[in-house]
Amino acid sequence: MKKRFLALTLFLGIAQLALAQEKRQQNPESSEIWEPVPRVVTPGVLSPNTASGTTAPSDAIVLFDGKDGSQWVSVKGYSPEAWGGVTAGTNPWPVRDGAMFSAKGASIRTKQEFQDFQLHLEFRAPDKVEGNGQGRGNSGIFLQGRYELQVLDGYNNPTYSNGMVGSIYKQAIPLVNPSRKPGEWQTYDIIYYAPKFNKDGMMSEMGKVTVLLNGVLILYDFHIKGTTEYIGYPKVQPHGKGPLLLQDHGNPVGFRNIWIREL
Amino acid sequence: MKKRFLALTLFLGIAQLALAQEKRQQNPESSEIWEPVPRVVTPGVLSPNTASGTTAPSDAIVLFDGKDGSQWVSVKGYSPEAWGGVTAGTNPWPVRDGAMFSAKGASIRTKQEFQDFQLHLEFRAPDKVEGNGQGRGNSGIFLQGRYELQVLDGYNNPTYSNGMVGSIYKQAIPLVNPSRKPGEWQTYDIIYYAPKFNKDGMMSEMGKVTVLLNGVLILYDFHIKGTTEYIGYPKVQPHGKGPLLLQDHGNPVGFRNIWIREL
Amino acid sequence: MKKRFLALTLFLGIAQLALAQEKRQQNPESSEIWEPVPRVVTPGVLSPNTASGTTAPSDAIVLFDGKDGSQWVSVKGYSPEAWGGVTAGTNPWPVRDGAMFSAKGASIRTKQEFQDFQLHLEFRAPDKVEGNGQGRGNSGIFLQGRYELQVLDGYNNPTYSNGMVGSIYKQAIPLVNPSRKPGEWQTYDIIYYAPKFNKDGMMSEMGKVTVLLNGVLILYDFHIKGTTEYIGYPKVQPHGKGPLLLQDHGNPVGFRNIWIREL
Amino acid sequence: MKKRFLALTLFLGIAQLALAQEKRQQNPESSEIWEPVPRVVTPGVLSPNTASGTTAPSDAIVLFDGKDGSQWVSVKGYSPEAWGGVTAGTNPWPVRDGAMFSAKGASIRTKQEFQDFQLHLEFRAPDKVEGNGQGRGNSGIFLQGRYELQVLDGYNNPTYSNGMVGSIYKQAIPLVNPSRKPGEWQTYDIIYYAPKFNKDGMMSEMGKVTVLLNGVLILYDFHIKGTTEYIGYPKVQPHGKGPLLLQDHGNPVGFRNIWIREL
Repeated sequence: MKKRFLALTLFLGIAQLALAQEKRQQNPESSEIWEPVPRVVTPGVLSPNTASGTTAPSDAIVLFDGKDGSQWVSVKGYSPEAWGGVTAGTNPWPVRDGAMFSAKGASIRTKQEFQDFQLHLEFRAPDKVEGNGQGRGNSGIFLQGRYELQVLDGYNNPTYSNGMVGSIYKQAIPLVNPSRKPGEWQTYDIIYYAPKFNKDGMMSEMGKVTVLLNGVLILYDFHIKGTTEYIGYPKVQPHGKGPLLLQDHGNPVGFRNIWIREL
Repeated sequence: MKKRFLALTLFLGIAQLALAQEKRQQNPESSEIWEPVPRVVTPGVLSPNTASGTTAPSDAIVLFDGKDGSQWVSVKGYSPEAWGGVTAGTNPWPVRDGAMFSAKGASIRTKQEFQDFQLHLEFRAPDKVEGNGQGRGNSGIFLQGRYELQVLDGYNNPTYSNGMVGSIYKQAIPLVNPSRKPGEWQTYDIIYYAPKFNKDGMMSEMGKVTVLLNGVLILYDFHIKGTTEYIGYPKVQPHGKGPLLLQDHGNPVGFRNIWIREL
Repeated sequence: MKKRFLALTLFLGIAQLALAQEKRQQNPESSEIWEPVPRVVTPGVLSPNTASGTTAPSDAIVLFDGKDGSQWVSVKGYSPEAWGGVTAGTNPWPVRDGAMFSAKGASIRTKQEFQDFQLHLEFRAPDKVEGNGQGRGNSGIFLQGRYELQVLDGYNNPTYSNGMVGSIYKQAIPLVNPSRKPGEWQTYDIIYYAPKFNKDGMMSEMGKVTVLLNGVLILYDFHIKGTTEYIGYPKVQPHGKGPLLLQDHGNPVGFRNIWIREL
Repeated sequence: MKKRFLALTLFLGIAQLALAQEKRQQNPESSEIWEPVPRVVTPGVLSPNTASGTTAPSDAIVLFDGKDGSQWVSVKGYSPEAWGGVTAGTNPWPVRDGAMFSAKGASIRTKQEFQDFQLHLEFRAPDKVEGNGQGRGNSGIFLQGRYELQVLDGYNNPTYSNGMVGSIYKQAIPLVNPSRKPGEWQTYDIIYYAPKFNKDGMMSEMGKVTVLLNGVLILYDFHIKGTTEYIGYPKVQPHGKGPLLLQDHGNPVGFRNIWIREL
């Protein structure tokens, strides 16, 4: 016991030395916030016999209709360098039972790019629970390919608050947690206005997002500070239109009924 | 023809005289805006066999469940003077087929009062079309009893843009017009943050509202300038919590599935 | 007495008739708001021996330096039709004592056009008080040529609140009234973000303005609904960059130390 | 050389081990952002013969008039636990030449507490340059005792962008850098609206701040996410009114002409 303590002290001492030398070293945990924990809300149901949310309005672009995944292409990662300007492969995500499922090793993005929009989509965490925290039902929706709205199995699954389902990953904590059970379809309704950049490359107006999860408000007009980073702080990178990107995080998360309206 | 023109000229001349004497005379038409006309959008449907939107989440207050109208009372008008501080009568709106219908001569308000909230409700214009413009399927939802989100039959029914369905009456023009046909149930999802007032009685922060009509965004974070007035400009009147008020405007408009979540 | 009442009744009756025929007739008075009246604040002074505000920062465009009015041209009116796309005359406003003074019959606009900006300017109502209300020291600054920040002698000069100095004319009432005496130089510090328009021609994001008058906050992030109209409601008219326009309203109002920074 | 590399590798390897054991270890450097670097702007001057900004308007509370520091008390630290609810000592900051200077080991706070306000103050970094980066002319203004607007000598003094003068410390990067030279008086004009909290303890509306430094806009309606933390992410802590707190950071920074207007 005492020996272990000494070893730890030694480790930490050396760690501090190393950090002193490597001034700005960062790690993923340094941007996790574990409190407050949003309270649980059981969302309403749409109707007894359907699990689906609303169909697309007449002015929407249908990005996935349950059958055809051809509006999406494979990407090598979820940074602008990884998904932009490269010859992308065909969408490798399998389609079954009217849904696309994330395939190991490949995230996907839309061919089309967007500015301001209203987005509807439905997702489903695996009904067989495996793993926990960030390892359970993890995926993500990258708005304009840069700003991640977290997808995660949020049902009785503690994790850091700014990384739970409904968070703008490592930036915004949702107001409440209206998650459905694993295996149940859930709806996201997202209103997004893109950030504006000035000639200095500064963000003259921040991106803004309002989100309903299963019909319950979780974010209102949240101002997005910069790009989603796993390690460290959001970055400011001027850009124009961008795609939607769905993340593969190693869990087979299903998606269906995806439509978008340009605002 | 010529005679009529002369008469009109005379009328107008006299009218101008009258106006000159009555310096600040106003009329309802002076606050109507007829352009631009929001484009029509056909909203999606929830599912083939249901016309209902989502049921209430677990933290919502159900204000009307299809059977019991006892959370509402009758009011004599839709100004704070008319609905506040008076002994109100029981809710006179008849309940049938799981809905309440506006009854001639009586608007109703909730007994409870609210500050910031998410509100869901469904409404239905009469399936038999009678009248036109403001005379067809007219009702309204007064947020905190003061700020009217217009309810109107908006299907092929031209009227002034700032008075159509989805407008903050005489203040905000909706982005689009996603009305359903007369007789079909329609959903309103409303996010509202109350205005703040300072010790001078000035509005230090405006009320804000975001609205989806039939699942389609029509208003985003609109700043409400003041009370809804039929004649003249919005007024600034400091207040605390306020009720929801449903307007009777002489047309039998149906309401159902009303729930509210305090934010 | 009784006779006069009858005549008035008659006038009004006929006026109503006329209005019924001319459905949407409007007049300037119908958009005046007279209450609440912002309380008076005596602003601080900059220093005992100077009346001037801050000089231009290094990244500002100096629009008037006290000598040279050549960055401005004469316009025929203060609507986009009047000031845009026409061969404009040279700036007719006389320069004396380091200031430009409005000249009867001619408003002026900048040759350059702007989007988002920080604007500083100083103005001076005539020291000899003539007229009252809107007739005393009246001028105006039209942001992007469309949205008027009112300039008026606001010292012991009652007028309608949404038309007083510091108002967005007929839209926004200032929080307080920090006017200086007639003949004293006053400073405006204005931060402005232009509205955005979507492909439908709708205002997808409103213009926003924050204003300090003599160093005192009078408007904070006010959302501008549309163009300034003397009669009737603000209009939504899609546009890109626009000029600054200084209004002549028949009173010799002085301007000096005008600079702008693009944001 | 190679040996040093090996040693570093070893250090880092052990550091990672240590971090793995200490899951959420954080360090101050992990929340520093070094890019983008706001461009330098030379601010204007008020007038040739004065270094002072505007005097207080008539409705302001004068918090320091150049002579009397008695509206401030000594605090033991700059967290709510340190400055609230304790018997505080008298203000130990020396007053000379019409200014208060930060004294080693003691930060100070106002006796009064505030909600929404406009704040003016002037500060001065030592004219003799000592130290660099965060070690040069460092102080800070904690709005409501929780949200730090950074005070630093920003003249030719590189540091991380979200910790430079004009930043909301570790949250917001200023648009530009309009610093004056060491020893010159500088002005801050700050407009602040306090955050609102709901019954869950969530921030239902974020705090908002607009700042001009030396008359130049550096932050516009920035939404403050939570408390200022030296290490780690901002925290959400519900609160009511709060004091202004001026930080001692070991450098003798001067303050003068401090006034506040409640909004």
